[in-house]
Amino acid sequence: MSAQTASTLPRVVIIGGGFGGLYTAQDLKQAPLQITLIDKRNFHLFQPLLYQVATGSLSPADISSPLRMVLRGHKNTQVLMDEALDIDPVRRQVILRDHEPVEYDALIVATGASHHYFGNEQWRSLAPGLKTIEDALEIRRRVFLAFESAEKETDPQKQQAWLTFVIVGAGPTGVELAGSIAEIAHSALRGNFRRIDTRQAKILLVEGLDRVLPPYSPALSARAERDLTHLGVTVQTQSLVTQITPESVALRQGEKEQIIPARTVLWAAGVKASELGQVLAQRAGAELDRAGRIIVREDLTIPGYDNIFVLGDLAHFAHHGEAPLPGVAPVAMQEAAYLAKHLPRRLAGQAIPPFRYVDYGSLAVIGQNKAVVDFGFAQFTGLIAWMIWVWAHIYYLIEFDNKLIVMVQWGWNYFTRGRGARLITGEGPISSGQSEEKAEPAPALSR
Amino acid sequence: MSAQTASTLPRVVIIGGGFGGLYTAQDLKQAPLQITLIDKRNFHLFQPLLYQVATGSLSPADISSPLRMVLRGHKNTQVLMDEALDIDPVRRQVILRDHEPVEYDALIVATGASHHYFGNEQWRSLAPGLKTIEDALEIRRRVFLAFESAEKETDPQKQQAWLTFVIVGAGPTGVELAGSIAEIAHSALRGNFRRIDTRQAKILLVEGLDRVLPPYSPALSARAERDLTHLGVTVQTQSLVTQITPESVALRQGEKEQIIPARTVLWAAGVKASELGQVLAQRAGAELDRAGRIIVREDLTIPGYDNIFVLGDLAHFAHHGEAPLPGVAPVAMQEAAYLAKHLPRRLAGQAIPPFRYVDYGSLAVIGQNKAVVDFGFAQFTGLIAWMIWVWAHIYYLIEFDNKLIVMVQWGWNYFTRGRGARLITGEGPISSGQSEEKAEPAPALSR
Repeated sequence: MSAQTASTLPRVVIIGGGFGGLYTAQDLKQAPLQITLIDKRNFHLFQPLLYQVATGSLSPADISSPLRMVLRGHKNTQVLMDEALDIDPVRRQVILRDHEPVEYDALIVATGASHHYFGNEQWRSLAPGLKTIEDALEIRRRVFLAFESAEKETDPQKQQAWLTFVIVGAGPTGVELAGSIAEIAHSALRGNFRRIDTRQAKILLVEGLDRVLPPYSPALSARAERDLTHLGVTVQTQSLVTQITPESVALRQGEKEQIIPARTVLWAAGVKASELGQVLAQRAGAELDRAGRIIVREDLTIPGYDNIFVLGDLAHFAHHGEAPLPGVAPVAMQEAAYLAKHLPRRLAGQAIPPFRYVDYGSLAVIGQNKAVVDFGFAQFTGLIAWMIWVWAHIYYLIEFDNKLIVMVQWGWNYFTRGRGARLITGEGPISSGQSEEKAEPAPALSR
Repeated sequence: MSAQTASTLPRVVIIGGGFGGLYTAQDLKQAPLQITLIDKRNFHLFQPLLYQVATGSLSPADISSPLRMVLRGHKNTQVLMDEALDIDPVRRQVILRDHEPVEYDALIVATGASHHYFGNEQWRSLAPGLKTIEDALEIRRRVFLAFESAEKETDPQKQQAWLTFVIVGAGPTGVELAGSIAEIAHSALRGNFRRIDTRQAKILLVEGLDRVLPPYSPALSARAERDLTHLGVTVQTQSLVTQITPESVALRQGEKEQIIPARTVLWAAGVKASELGQVLAQRAGAELDRAGRIIVREDLTIPGYDNIFVLGDLAHFAHHGEAPLPGVAPVAMQEAAYLAKHLPRRLAGQAIPPFRYVDYGSLAVIGQNKAVVDFGFAQFTGLIAWMIWVWAHIYYLIEFDNKLIVMVQWGWNYFTRGRGARLITGEGPISSGQSEEKAEPAPALSR
């Protein structure tokens, strides 16, 4: 560290403790800076495994790392648990809900994205998405309560509606959820009920485009669809959701309209950048794309502000003439590494090279022993792909603590096909309103 | 199994999947009976470790076992996730919220107990107790949010109120909570904050009687108090809570009145038997004690009904002339074993011997390497007691799955003194209302 005193060191403010924000802070551990990391939650969430919490394989703490714990050895960093409400790029201030405004010399905005219902906000409570721990626990609650409700129901048609699960969107999250629910129905719950056969559950994966995992190669999409079908998932492509009610989903496939009685609908169809993007657009004149992401320059800054960087799911970054980078953890992590490396030079007024993303490939897991991996130069499916997936996810779970527990839990789940974390918890009703005559379950469940 | 068909086998209904109810069902695995286990939750909860969820050491699923999973191999047993609302001892029926009434030849009621605020129901939202997973997560939320709020607060007095934790009641639960919060403040969070020194936290354990762990021998109580003091807990005995507000607790110690500014108050002072006890008292003329427990006969039945048994925390059982048995897991487990052994004979109209409780001793844990064990003939403290405590709890965690995970987690926690499950989750506000001017935090927190 230089001879500067702490108070004269450049002030770096990072908003968001996800892969973009936290990895930047981690990589800047030794830098002569005053870093402030702001997040409204007190933990980093390993989102790629969130579907395993939603389906009862892991506990929330297994995939969460307290930010203060991760950064406790970083003498140059303080963590504020707070929400950034506004940004003043002229005064170089971030306005917070609970604290005094914090001033910055460089600002890094990495607040990610949430679900997007394409203008159908009323679907939010009927078809929860998967972005937060609370979302995951709500989905877990609904999935396992659906089997309990089916066991209680005596009318066969209503019973089948409880045993019908519709997942909207066949990207990686939708595929993971559908595959997991199929495994729950066919393996984990087998022999657990007396009146229903959980294998009668219908898991319907609905996709608007013409194949599952649209960003992957057609060959891998085909393999993923075959694996899903083998697990018991019904894949329906080129279909759009036109209506969701507490008891059904309406789909349109070309000219064909269908109404599917279903009590559980999960939303994996779209994401929208967090609202801080709009704030930045307003305050700093940044341009947004259709998903609300901020269009950044080749050094991840926004036009006109060399000291405001945007990373991760909130950023729309495109290599010259190409499609924007997808909202996945590896992009955020590479952006963080780039930024941590070059930020001190930028703060010293020196030129920095443009960011270049290196695509090491894509992974999606479908079920036990089933995954697809696309390295570009090579593609893997089945058990090998699954092992690559397991290895990559264990490797990146930030703390040794989490890694160890998750490994033990996975090892155990692997051999038992059990789902020990299938608790139905939360504030909703104990009974799920087995018949419409009694109560509409959806509003109650969404409490 | 006899040649009887299933429909003519005696029908046994068990209400409650705690230690009493679940262990009875488990022990009756081979019995020629039709057993129905009813619980409003879908899991058995290992309550002795609930304080570890409340203090961020374990996750809810680590101490919970899905009832259907535990009983999946029991061909004679069905699980109903439902709430028993009423009992009709003449028609021999249990009235349920969602299902048709179930008929029984023998009824086992084991619905346990919840907190008791001694007529001060308004304290419930201000000073949560610890009986359910939701309670534990609410306490975890408040404890870790208090440190975050202290870090945000600039007024030293208000900061100290956030760093003051009052635990009401010095029975085993109160001692465990106080010791754990002291360890959080002194070890787990050390170096995590920049503005506050978490070691400035004040942990006050308040007890109405003249010593901590009143049911134990005076020597062990003295040792426990010494250990608590060593951990940083202030023990205040012979003190009664006279008022709780969102910002303070009023105590009376003899003539002395004190007001202690404190933002976090936890309730470990009293339990009251569940409401089904009152139902039984009304319907079957059973007698209740002051804590709402049903006074049972020496075979655990209620007077006048040889086929209605009451177990566990809901039962008031006293050996001739002695005090009633305490509401602890070993009592419920021995009662369950007794009942499972003799129930078939009772159903066949044969005489059964009276229940006898064998007291193998009491355990209470104070902190890492610190516990007290009272075997009657011998007493242990410190590391040896702690190891006995660890062994006993690992042993009784029902499933291998849970045991393994908890062992790994404990092993890791032991060496790191970490608390990886310290997530602040739930529906409350992100910011905790750092100043009274903004919002009263307590009503918001209790949402």
